[in-house]
Amino acid sequence: MTIKEYIQLDIDPQFNGALPFNTYTQQVPKGYVFTDFQQIPTQVFFIQTGIIQVEIMAKGSIRIIDFFFAPSFFAAYSSLLTKQPSDVRIKAVVDCQVEWLNYSELQSAYEYSLIANKLGRIATQRLYLKRVLKEKQLLTQTAEDNYRALIQQYPEVLQQIPLKEISKYLGITPESLSRIRKRIIS
Amino acid sequence: MTIKEYIQLDIDPQFNGALPFNTYTQQVPKGYVFTDFQQIPTQVFFIQTGIIQVEIMAKGSIRIIDFFFAPSFFAAYSSLLTKQPSDVRIKAVVDCQVEWLNYSELQSAYEYSLIANKLGRIATQRLYLKRVLKEKQLLTQTAEDNYRALIQQYPEVLQQIPLKEISKYLGITPESLSRIRKRIIS
Repeated sequence: MTIKEYIQLDIDPQFNGALPFNTYTQQVPKGYVFTDFQQIPTQVFFIQTGIIQVEIMAKGSIRIIDFFFAPSFFAAYSSLLTKQPSDVRIKAVVDCQVEWLNYSELQSAYEYSLIANKLGRIATQRLYLKRVLKEKQLLTQTAEDNYRALIQQYPEVLQQIPLKEISKYLGITPESLSRIRKRIIS
Repeated sequence: MTIKEYIQLDIDPQFNGALPFNTYTQQVPKGYVFTDFQQIPTQVFFIQTGIIQVEIMAKGSIRIIDFFFAPSFFAAYSSLLTKQPSDVRIKAVVDCQVEWLNYSELQSAYEYSLIANKLGRIATQRLYLKRVLKEKQLLTQTAEDNYRALIQQYPEVLQQIPLKEISKYLGITPESLSRIRKRIIS
């Protein structure tokens, strides 16, 4: 799905198809880094196919704080908003196809464009909901609950993401995750 | 500060002062509940004076997941977005003056109004940043770091919020918080 199709389907059915910014399509291999630690990001990405993970350095080791699946926008969004170097690294989990735009063009469009603001508002609402849901899960649920929620929400996670990475997302050791998986299967 | 002044100052200096929704002003006493657990929220609030706290039931006890200070929008936002009953309780920490609007009117304005969408986008970006910042702090910092960040960001917290509530926010016991405070003072 392209950004245009996403807007027509999900943001505004009356959208006339004229985007107020340029977009570009890019194929990247597994392991490709979209934004690295300490980099100042300038792009906003939209995932057409593949899976993206977002990593953070937490107390000396890498933690995964987010996965993105198509169709969805992704970016080092807090760095874009605050103009600070990124404290996350954004990486392709598998080969991906993405569409991207320059954040500066989006910002110019925000000045006058209703559709740009609708898009920015709704995409941000979704990012917000994802963060809040995760925070509430971490506070109120066990690692097993969180793993169950993850496989229910994203069945494809199980197939394509190494267990070691999933355990980094859940904040537990790979051994704990193995025990949880055995309990669920049995 | 009113919502109109907030928009002029912080969202769009060209704003002509005509809001695309009605707003109402309300004084509430300390302890007033704006949205309760399991309630379906219908309002968006804007804090003019006072302090707001947001509570969640986490593993059998109340945890505080957020504070809001003037000027800022607040609401059971994820419930408004998902139309689910609220899993948070929003409460006045001290006597407050708020301005509020009906979310349904805001939603209608989102259809056509540039300023409504700018406001919704930017307010949501700020809420998003706040959640991400908190998540990153919890992952990468100690309770002492988090307490130092809190008193630096919101010096007024120290004066007006009981220590018991601050410890609920940091996810530690009041005794641990006392030890941290002693270390910081000495």
